[in-house]
Amino acid sequence: MAETTGTRLDQQIAFLNEADKLKNTLRATELCDNSRYENSAEHSWHLTLYALVLADQAGPAVDINLVIRMLILHDLVEIDAGDNPIFGTHDISEMEAKEQEAADRIFGMLPIDLRDELRVIWEEFEAAETPSAQFAKSLDRFQPPMQNLQSGGGSWIDFDVTEAQIHEKVGSKIAIGAPHLWTYAKGRIASFFADRT
Amino acid sequence: MAETTGTRLDQQIAFLNEADKLKNTLRATELCDNSRYENSAEHSWHLTLYALVLADQAGPAVDINLVIRMLILHDLVEIDAGDNPIFGTHDISEMEAKEQEAADRIFGMLPIDLRDELRVIWEEFEAAETPSAQFAKSLDRFQPPMQNLQSGGGSWIDFDVTEAQIHEKVGSKIAIGAPHLWTYAKGRIASFFADRT
Repeated sequence: MAETTGTRLDQQIAFLNEADKLKNTLRATELCDNSRYENSAEHSWHLTLYALVLADQAGPAVDINLVIRMLILHDLVEIDAGDNPIFGTHDISEMEAKEQEAADRIFGMLPIDLRDELRVIWEEFEAAETPSAQFAKSLDRFQPPMQNLQSGGGSWIDFDVTEAQIHEKVGSKIAIGAPHLWTYAKGRIASFFADRT
Repeated sequence: MAETTGTRLDQQIAFLNEADKLKNTLRATELCDNSRYENSAEHSWHLTLYALVLADQAGPAVDINLVIRMLILHDLVEIDAGDNPIFGTHDISEMEAKEQEAADRIFGMLPIDLRDELRVIWEEFEAAETPSAQFAKSLDRFQPPMQNLQSGGGSWIDFDVTEAQIHEKVGSKIAIGAPHLWTYAKGRIASFFADRT
């Protein structure tokens, strides 16, 4: 773990400057207007807005303020580990090890109390066991199809994905925390693929 | 105000798709690595992280969850009204009128209850009268100098800004909601300008 130096505020600012790098981490999803790939920082912002606007899709045990905190933090590890597109091929245990190392380094830049506070939120998201984490994960899976439907297919085209693969890799995850959102997406995805054949 | 159509969820998704456009609104601030200008969506994300990490700089009457909601929403009107760089020249009453029109149109895409809920948060931020709004505004003014210090001057160079102008236009605002952050920034800004002479 990186040594932290300087005053408390120096450490907080160094962490915030480091976080700026997430604006350079590209994802496989394109913007709605198809003009370029999305980066993980603006994606994270968009998801916090999804949480605010779609809070009525969350179950009664979900804490929306915690969901928003998870979504602010969820991709920070990609500064070191990069984004792993859902339809890409990667070794999951290798990816998880890289992300844990990244979390050690990046959250480790903070004063210890803050490091622990934010790490716990990120770990809860990653574990996807609590209602808040499951809702946050569902939003993280729901936004890319919404963008792909707007941009003309986006990552579905790039990765030559079938409707069945979307059901398996994306739908199954959305359905856990936000079943009605999956019903909504499923119908629109079916229309999209029907129009292409 | 735009007519809303479709089901509640259709309206929510149409709003979230519209919000995607904020990723194309460029600001006057550069990324820390000086590689390009920042957009308002990734800036908004960065500010929510500032709020999480610098919550210990907020006064006791500040509600950090509300601050985060304000920061998620604060720049949405720029989809229509564009960003107004703090050191640029623009007519303030014209800008405010444009932003109100933008708020009518953009929040107006939502179901009425959500439209009102989010508009109230944005208006509280804009008015800058409550402790939460003042802290959110201070963070919004504090982040660009932190980026400029990293990127070699950024908007200070582009707009040929003096240290006194930063004190007047930026420092006075940061000091209202986060006085210790202004003390911190002021010292570093002084060193930056001293090194340039």
